[in-house]
Amino acid sequence: MRVTFPLMAIGLEVAMIVLFWLFVQYEADQTISQQLNTTRPTKMDSFVQLYPLFQDVHVMIFVGFGFLMTFLKKYGFSSVGINLLIAALGLQWGTLVLGLLHARGEKFHIGIKEMISADFSTATVLISFGAVLGKTSPIQMLIMTILEIAVFAANEFLVAEIFVASDTGASMTIHAFGAYFGLAVAGVLYRSGLREGHHNEESVYHSDIFAMIGTLFLWIFWPSFNSAIAEPGDHQYRAIVNTYFSLAACVLTAYAVSSLVTYRGKLEMVHIQNATLAGGVAVGTCADMDIQPYIAMIIGSIAGLVSVLGYKCLTPFCATTLRIHDTCGVHNLHGLPGVVGGLASIVAIAVGVSTIAMQAAALGSSIGTALVGGLVTGQQK
Amino acid sequence: MRVTFPLMAIGLEVAMIVLFWLFVQYEADQTISQQLNTTRPTKMDSFVQLYPLFQDVHVMIFVGFGFLMTFLKKYGFSSVGINLLIAALGLQWGTLVLGLLHARGEKFHIGIKEMISADFSTATVLISFGAVLGKTSPIQMLIMTILEIAVFAANEFLVAEIFVASDTGASMTIHAFGAYFGLAVAGVLYRSGLREGHHNEESVYHSDIFAMIGTLFLWIFWPSFNSAIAEPGDHQYRAIVNTYFSLAACVLTAYAVSSLVTYRGKLEMVHIQNATLAGGVAVGTCADMDIQPYIAMIIGSIAGLVSVLGYKCLTPFCATTLRIHDTCGVHNLHGLPGVVGGLASIVAIAVGVSTIAMQAAALGSSIGTALVGGLVTGQQK
Amino acid sequence: MRVTFPLMAIGLEVAMIVLFWLFVQYEADQTISQQLNTTRPTKMDSFVQLYPLFQDVHVMIFVGFGFLMTFLKKYGFSSVGINLLIAALGLQWGTLVLGLLHARGEKFHIGIKEMISADFSTATVLISFGAVLGKTSPIQMLIMTILEIAVFAANEFLVAEIFVASDTGASMTIHAFGAYFGLAVAGVLYRSGLREGHHNEESVYHSDIFAMIGTLFLWIFWPSFNSAIAEPGDHQYRAIVNTYFSLAACVLTAYAVSSLVTYRGKLEMVHIQNATLAGGVAVGTCADMDIQPYIAMIIGSIAGLVSVLGYKCLTPFCATTLRIHDTCGVHNLHGLPGVVGGLASIVAIAVGVSTIAMQAAALGSSIGTALVGGLVTGQQK
Repeated sequence: MRVTFPLMAIGLEVAMIVLFWLFVQYEADQTISQQLNTTRPTKMDSFVQLYPLFQDVHVMIFVGFGFLMTFLKKYGFSSVGINLLIAALGLQWGTLVLGLLHARGEKFHIGIKEMISADFSTATVLISFGAVLGKTSPIQMLIMTILEIAVFAANEFLVAEIFVASDTGASMTIHAFGAYFGLAVAGVLYRSGLREGHHNEESVYHSDIFAMIGTLFLWIFWPSFNSAIAEPGDHQYRAIVNTYFSLAACVLTAYAVSSLVTYRGKLEMVHIQNATLAGGVAVGTCADMDIQPYIAMIIGSIAGLVSVLGYKCLTPFCATTLRIHDTCGVHNLHGLPGVVGGLASIVAIAVGVSTIAMQAAALGSSIGTALVGGLVTGQQK
Repeated sequence: MRVTFPLMAIGLEVAMIVLFWLFVQYEADQTISQQLNTTRPTKMDSFVQLYPLFQDVHVMIFVGFGFLMTFLKKYGFSSVGINLLIAALGLQWGTLVLGLLHARGEKFHIGIKEMISADFSTATVLISFGAVLGKTSPIQMLIMTILEIAVFAANEFLVAEIFVASDTGASMTIHAFGAYFGLAVAGVLYRSGLREGHHNEESVYHSDIFAMIGTLFLWIFWPSFNSAIAEPGDHQYRAIVNTYFSLAACVLTAYAVSSLVTYRGKLEMVHIQNATLAGGVAVGTCADMDIQPYIAMIIGSIAGLVSVLGYKCLTPFCATTLRIHDTCGVHNLHGLPGVVGGLASIVAIAVGVSTIAMQAAALGSSIGTALVGGLVTGQQK
Repeated sequence: MRVTFPLMAIGLEVAMIVLFWLFVQYEADQTISQQLNTTRPTKMDSFVQLYPLFQDVHVMIFVGFGFLMTFLKKYGFSSVGINLLIAALGLQWGTLVLGLLHARGEKFHIGIKEMISADFSTATVLISFGAVLGKTSPIQMLIMTILEIAVFAANEFLVAEIFVASDTGASMTIHAFGAYFGLAVAGVLYRSGLREGHHNEESVYHSDIFAMIGTLFLWIFWPSFNSAIAEPGDHQYRAIVNTYFSLAACVLTAYAVSSLVTYRGKLEMVHIQNATLAGGVAVGTCADMDIQPYIAMIIGSIAGLVSVLGYKCLTPFCATTLRIHDTCGVHNLHGLPGVVGGLASIVAIAVGVSTIAMQAAALGSSIGTALVGGLVTGQQK
């Protein structure tokens, strides 16, 4: 760490600056915005509409993900500090990789929409970080950020441009992808000492309340996450409404199931911090479809149920039998609900005709590239 | 609790899903937004304008109210956890009750405006929750949510459609209503042990700072709360400006009075956490009126004064003599300032002519229905 | 304190109300917004565009600055409480002083833009507060608020109207000004006991996480701070993009340098809480210029480097040799990066021709008036 970390961080930043110098430009026709006497939608309109959504997503990435992981009494500062480091590197690298892929290696322009996509790409690494928290050094996280975002961009390109599948709220390409990538890395990093759990792996009263800051800001702004890159108008409006009600339904189911499966009916804090968000993940893929609010609520309820059961049954099973130790339980918050989201979109499309195969391919590719990418990344110790 | 709570929560969620299936639809004419070559205000315009205000209110409901109640050292997690549960149920139920009332039992559409109103309706229950915190179980809170929002919707219908009274920032229909409803419930739940106070009824250094997270987010976004459902243009603009300055004035008075009435002039934390917000409550009813900023500042100053004196004198009096134990002092934050707001609107209208009687009726009805509803609800143990 | 503080606070609030009554009016032509069948940009457009930016800045002032200073274990509540008091007084007084200066003593109108400027003017005092935290009473802070905002308004008038210099993100007029004003006051208040540090001048684990709430909300919303008063269109867009990437680059450099200069390569919390923000300060002055993103990233990297080195070397030197004790290290977060920002703007303008002298005069005047103002204010004990 003594010199490796600073040298690597500075080296990466210098590389970013050079790549930005070579490839990144301001949006050229921004000046159109001045001519407001035109009536067609201008850059200015799109700025006014997108910037608040961008800021909501920005809060989710830095405060939401950062604080959600503070529940462990000894890793509060690491969570929120390394989260900031990963996201700051990730958004620069994500801007580059996504931009170069879509511009086929030419110079490209950045606007608010590209900033939202850059923030999104960091989310995958932050989700994976939840699985390996406490098991990795900052150096390993820098490497993982670079590798995972490259794989993410490749899979996202495959899903959007080759399969032409729909994934507005990114249940598959961000949540399932991030979770399975992280689990694959965690599997590689497994040491037998993790089986019995670690005494640092505990929360205290205050650390659980800090984590609720993360939970609540994620919960509140999730409608913005699922609608930020949706087509303006009907699609965006539906993404907001569906996510709003899916999350509300998810809270009731998650509380109910948590109380059912816990000793003496007490509410388990880790369920409340995480499973209440599963409705946002699961409704993502079909967020902008014409599914009606009550279907969104059913999807949210299923996600809440699946997520709590995952914490209760699957996490211990993974740790002991599969030898995968998932520190924050990202499989239950992002993995399973992401799969639920992918399956829901297949059903939604099946009912309304159309390209089931591509939707299934998108789900498969998101999980497949994540697992392979994660296994390879895990070797880079 | 063992099975009652999960069964009730799941039962309520199933009921919500069925009712949404029967009654709730997307906004039909959202597609107008596509035709941006029209120059009249479209749904799209209203979306761009309302969505940021909605998100501000959303932060107030979940982070603001949730963290404001974390000041008690032993109830931090309950506050923020049960707050989320109540609000998630309340926003579904509020959508239904308000929608059905205004559509006279027909199918109805939901847009951002309806989502703001649904969030508002949950605020009444969250205010009442502050009065009964530590005295009720989650089961009782689910019942209270269903009952209180129904009574709230009835009173709101009375005020807006029958009295045609003005209550933009909802000083009367939300704040006074929520406070007196909660006090009525607290009165019914009174046990003599509460007279001397409870050793759990204490704050510690960290819990007081957590509560400040709630205070600050409420304080910051209060202009959005008071302007979210105001008429766009002048009215909305005035609601923002008046609330901004009323709150600022309230802070100075609350600090001054707190220092005056406290031993050796120290600032009392509970005053700073709560009384600084009274200016937002009190200016609510006349927020969008043409009262001039300095009048808003006078209203805010009076609210800060009344609120601190309420904590100092009225809360102990209520607990010992009236046998009403108000855990978070909601009477001082929402009750009294709500009444100040109602009275201020009567004065404002008296000075500028017009319907004083209806405004007074609105205040009376908000307090009356709250007390009766709360007393009845309190019996449902 | 017993009576002086309450009397002074109430007296100031009464004075504010009288001055608002005499001078402040609603925006007169707000009604234009009703006529949405006009196609030119209306007040309504500007409201829809500015209000979300205003709320972002508002969060920075009250949550960002308030929580950033909670890192000291014994001053958490003072930080966040006195921060609220200062800001509430400051925004009223800032509205008046700025309004009267620009209207040359006539009645003036207030809109969202004036509210943003009022929030900005409080930022100077909050920055200075960071230098004197733990050394001043609430009474002294009330006096400092009144004096500092008056001097700030005078300097801002000089910079904008006489020098006609550019300072969109206010690196010089707010950050450098606030820092040097605070340092001058701290120099006057110096007592020899401060040389060895104080046992209250320590953080604990939880207080450091509280401070991260401040850091993150400042970091997230800084693009709004630097763009809120920029010209709409290209300028505003560039201010957002440049700030976004400058901050990201700053994080990597700050982490790297922190790890280099700290014992055994550990990351120092105070660096992460503060130096990661220096990129936002430093890019402020040229935020809206056509400098290209990679230059913004270079500015951010330099700021991160300078800020960490400041904490490591300059703060101890100031405390022992210069006899200036800077509690929160505002010189490293706002002072030095503000100077970097001023110098960067001189270089940027030099490269592209134009008024270097005026830009240099703006930097000089911001530091000069701050130091003189602070020295005079420090005497008012």
